[in-house]
Amino acid sequence: MFDLDRYLKERAQLIDRELAASIDEPRGAAARLYEAMRYSLLAGGKRLRPVLVLASCEAVGGKIEAAMGLACAVEMIHTYSLIHDDLPCMDDDDFRRGRPTNHKVYGEAIATLAGDALLTDAFEVLVRKSPDSAEPRIVLETIAELANAAGSAGMVGGQVIDLLGEGKSKTIDELEELHAKKTGALFLASVRGGARLGGANESQIESLDAYARALGLAFQVVDDLLDVQGTPEQMGKRTQKDQERGKATYPAILGIERSVDLARELESRANRALKGFDAGAEPLRHLATFVVERKL
Amino acid sequence: MFDLDRYLKERAQLIDRELAASIDEPRGAAARLYEAMRYSLLAGGKRLRPVLVLASCEAVGGKIEAAMGLACAVEMIHTYSLIHDDLPCMDDDDFRRGRPTNHKVYGEAIATLAGDALLTDAFEVLVRKSPDSAEPRIVLETIAELANAAGSAGMVGGQVIDLLGEGKSKTIDELEELHAKKTGALFLASVRGGARLGGANESQIESLDAYARALGLAFQVVDDLLDVQGTPEQMGKRTQKDQERGKATYPAILGIERSVDLARELESRANRALKGFDAGAEPLRHLATFVVERKL
Repeated sequence: MFDLDRYLKERAQLIDRELAASIDEPRGAAARLYEAMRYSLLAGGKRLRPVLVLASCEAVGGKIEAAMGLACAVEMIHTYSLIHDDLPCMDDDDFRRGRPTNHKVYGEAIATLAGDALLTDAFEVLVRKSPDSAEPRIVLETIAELANAAGSAGMVGGQVIDLLGEGKSKTIDELEELHAKKTGALFLASVRGGARLGGANESQIESLDAYARALGLAFQVVDDLLDVQGTPEQMGKRTQKDQERGKATYPAILGIERSVDLARELESRANRALKGFDAGAEPLRHLATFVVERKL
Repeated sequence: MFDLDRYLKERAQLIDRELAASIDEPRGAAARLYEAMRYSLLAGGKRLRPVLVLASCEAVGGKIEAAMGLACAVEMIHTYSLIHDDLPCMDDDDFRRGRPTNHKVYGEAIATLAGDALLTDAFEVLVRKSPDSAEPRIVLETIAELANAAGSAGMVGGQVIDLLGEGKSKTIDELEELHAKKTGALFLASVRGGARLGGANESQIESLDAYARALGLAFQVVDDLLDVQGTPEQMGKRTQKDQERGKATYPAILGIERSVDLARELESRANRALKGFDAGAEPLRHLATFVVERKL
């Protein structure tokens, strides 16, 4: 019997150790920079993106060592995006998961630079952590897809769309495009990259691509539902600010009931995409359910 | 007879075209992001770093197409660093080269994101512009070195040292370490990477490493000298702010005369490092002289 709680806990610990080892040198005069980077990177959390990287690698029969560089890189990129999102010129948030945000502790300049460094170092970590046995051409393709997912065509582009569209009403298609870029692209790069590094063939990558798109969107629909249904701790500060800004959400457009139905439909879609996979994809199946059920 | 002025002009035009083609899609709702990226990336300038990439590639007998991806990537990374440096929480500059800085035109949020996107996209461009004939292992090593030069161990680290050390007196060794990270590392990655992509052997890379270190330091010494000797246009706004901040400079520590001697000695050192190279290294030789003489 697959024990998801235990699996998630063990994987998060493994990833935490690898991340800590990736930036463990408080080098000379720049020690303050490393402190700021570690403050946000090693703040715990579910590590959902790197967990997906490793699970996708295993789903196609790969060893997780092959994908550990990418696992660390996506978490470093996710962390940089949170630091920059929290800056006063962006969302201006004072707290994240109950702790003061990076710039509240280290100041805006160091927080900006800590984000820049995490983003840049991610690409070095991806290369340096790749085992000697890795096919260089496959690592290169993974780097290009990751940069595409995180850059102007992906996460940063989505952030701009979100920023400039604040308070404007959106169609369901516009909302889907926004989320596909802002959060979906990094999920997609995690799953596709993990699978590719694990030795996936094109047909497997195509199936996992469908899985990741459904999962990423489900994640966002559930996030939106939590904003209206969650407990105060689940909602956090985000909700209040989002409401002030008139943020477009799935429940606001579809209503709560149809949003719940959509999340369930996306969970089914994610699992259907895995039907050609053997028991190695069991973690991915449970993760789809976890993403939808975590708080519904 | 080698015509440096013409060479620099033609190379800058070539690089401008390649850069424009790298981010020429004003995609949908994120069009404003691309506008902000282009505003700073296509603002002209000498393109010294990508010129060095291509010249180093040719110095070892390579074709410039092999290094064009890296040439674009280093200029994108250089540009992102200027955008973030100018932000109110950093140097708070309103003008750069006589034009309003990115955040004065697009606002702080978009400027921050335009920098993030240029940095991220640089790694995609490096991979996608590499010719099919490129050895993937060599492109990977180039990516790792570039990320190392731009990240916490290099440029960003140097920026933090500079920021936290403002107004404090420095020894000449501390000043050299600061510049080696803040500006030197990207010069070094440009020269080493260009040479590697051009097919350099280890001994050639070692010689060019010495060339790049001397050149990068000479560039900084001359920059400092211009701050005290330059015309008002050469000095720009930077000087006044730097003086207000009590910035440590070579003339402040060594005096003007010994700083000029140091710049000349570094030029000689750069040229000595090239003694084993044939006529293919002629542009690199002229570039060393150019960096020192441009305004002395």
